[in-house]
Amino acid sequence: MIRPVQWKNDRLILIDQTRLPEAYLEITIDSAEELWEAIRKLRVRGAPAIGVAAAFGVALEAFRYEGSDTPGCLEHLDRVCDYLATSRPTAVNLFWALDRMRAFARARRAMSLAQLQSALLQEAQSVLQEDLQLGRRLGFYGADLLRDGDTVLTHCNAGGLATGGFGTALGVIYAAREQGKRIRVYADETRPLLQGARLTAWELMQSGIEVTLICDNMAAVALRDKGIDAVIVGADRIASNGDFANKIGTYGLAVLARAHGIPFYTAAPFSSIDLTLASGKDIPIEMRDGDEVRSMGKDHWTAPREVPVFNPAFDVTPAEYLTAIITEKGVARAPFQDSLQTLACLPERGNEGFSMVGS
Amino acid sequence: MIRPVQWKNDRLILIDQTRLPEAYLEITIDSAEELWEAIRKLRVRGAPAIGVAAAFGVALEAFRYEGSDTPGCLEHLDRVCDYLATSRPTAVNLFWALDRMRAFARARRAMSLAQLQSALLQEAQSVLQEDLQLGRRLGFYGADLLRDGDTVLTHCNAGGLATGGFGTALGVIYAAREQGKRIRVYADETRPLLQGARLTAWELMQSGIEVTLICDNMAAVALRDKGIDAVIVGADRIASNGDFANKIGTYGLAVLARAHGIPFYTAAPFSSIDLTLASGKDIPIEMRDGDEVRSMGKDHWTAPREVPVFNPAFDVTPAEYLTAIITEKGVARAPFQDSLQTLACLPERGNEGFSMVGS
Repeated sequence: MIRPVQWKNDRLILIDQTRLPEAYLEITIDSAEELWEAIRKLRVRGAPAIGVAAAFGVALEAFRYEGSDTPGCLEHLDRVCDYLATSRPTAVNLFWALDRMRAFARARRAMSLAQLQSALLQEAQSVLQEDLQLGRRLGFYGADLLRDGDTVLTHCNAGGLATGGFGTALGVIYAAREQGKRIRVYADETRPLLQGARLTAWELMQSGIEVTLICDNMAAVALRDKGIDAVIVGADRIASNGDFANKIGTYGLAVLARAHGIPFYTAAPFSSIDLTLASGKDIPIEMRDGDEVRSMGKDHWTAPREVPVFNPAFDVTPAEYLTAIITEKGVARAPFQDSLQTLACLPERGNEGFSMVGS
Repeated sequence: MIRPVQWKNDRLILIDQTRLPEAYLEITIDSAEELWEAIRKLRVRGAPAIGVAAAFGVALEAFRYEGSDTPGCLEHLDRVCDYLATSRPTAVNLFWALDRMRAFARARRAMSLAQLQSALLQEAQSVLQEDLQLGRRLGFYGADLLRDGDTVLTHCNAGGLATGGFGTALGVIYAAREQGKRIRVYADETRPLLQGARLTAWELMQSGIEVTLICDNMAAVALRDKGIDAVIVGADRIASNGDFANKIGTYGLAVLARAHGIPFYTAAPFSSIDLTLASGKDIPIEMRDGDEVRSMGKDHWTAPREVPVFNPAFDVTPAEYLTAIITEKGVARAPFQDSLQTLACLPERGNEGFSMVGS
């Protein structure tokens, strides 16, 4: 299994996803500053993976605290959380993980510094383990929506690389395969940073799943002519009405899926759902540097250097285009206002129902 | 004015469009083989420009013929035409230009070789001049569909670089500007070969027209949020019912324009209309090498080298998505079966109606 974020030999290790597929490189993160840079530069990306990495980043900084007192460390961690929260604005899992680690630390004010450090590391490990477990749960709920022989189109990378290791949109496909279903995938390359070409194609090939790579602008023809049975994408933030933010291009894909009568799903952990937001128009959209569009790799300019560029990292898809939201608590259908609220009230489930997963 | 194809000092000169925008390079074409390679590698591209280049290629080969007899030269030119016709399968202008040159040559069987050579060069010059004139006519018909202050989204490059020099989709914008209208443009970068980023952005900036570059997958959000008044694209071949082939991504854009209530036009010379085809399903679609999608420039792999790729160069947009077809004979609206037939029966127009163009 791919492990994009792990704690190994007392160090936080990330796969540098900007180097895939040409190189598989594990990098060591030694400070919140290095983690901030890794998140901003997309060395670690995908809403759930960013959340896991941020949790470990808080633990890391507890060990790095130079004083010897717990209250001083808590103040330090407060600053660390505020700082890491500025790395990327759209995914809610980042804030969710930081809030969880902050609250966890504050509740342990009475501990010694050494106890606090160890407890925070344990908590970050829990965030990772829970992500892996929920990935499997989510995958198996989603897999029930697919039949043997289905073809799925996906966008960007909502796979193992985007999470603790199992994936959301691709987790559904992995779970379907574990159920004995053969699933084929069309992967949008996903400009400008090509996460589909670089990460999804690589990850699916590693997993032995049949994948065909297309440019984003070929999706319409693929939906019309290639017998695609479902579109499944991830989500960076879902509002309480079901509107959701995901990688730029998702909205267009949703409109095209509707026009071709093809079901359109988003798969995301419940921590991606922000019930404080009434609708998608309250989700802030990160605008990124135009050079991501103007150039390919270092010093290879593919557009005039001075041309103005519109480069939103995400778009918001209105809930009306969604067939269902696949979460680790179950599958929500319209009206999402009600179904998401109902799922939110369900108790956290253990693993008992998932012995078939083999975990 | 941009001159992608010209005859200068007895040589056929092309702008090498694969090098733009990093370098502006004029290359000399000395044989049909070199022209075939230039067309196949997209050094010259765009249906009308390919037609003009092919016409000059036939003239060039008449001069290159090593015998001294007209009948032998005609046989040589027959082989040249058959050969050049294999360079790219989708655009009809290539076949149209070759047929025109072949018929022109055959009708001059009685000429001396020197007379034939000179007459063929003259005819190729006529193909170029007619393309420039029809570009202006087409542009002014199309410009009437735009208002001052409009924003247009376009795909690929249907500009001066794709024609003799004035453009079709971009020709409409140039003509609107000559009418005193201020037009803004959103340009799809147009993967995999980035003609929008490399050529359209460059050409519009050269012409002083305000352009914003986007990735193809941002078009849906641009159509929704950026006040776009019209989508205008070129066409590589139009069937008698109005179905048309154009750069891959056009079909998706048409579906998205419809979903957002935005008029969708194709602009093309009448020679792009193939009245022998009942519908778009008879248009052959060129499939190109997957490495165009897997890599960016030389040796920069952005996807696993072994990943299967679906890489059609064009797609077919059904006529039902078209608001109108803009040609040099006028603007055709649905039902296109009738309107195209009506335009086909109009006599060729001279320049008298276009003195305002300043040509």
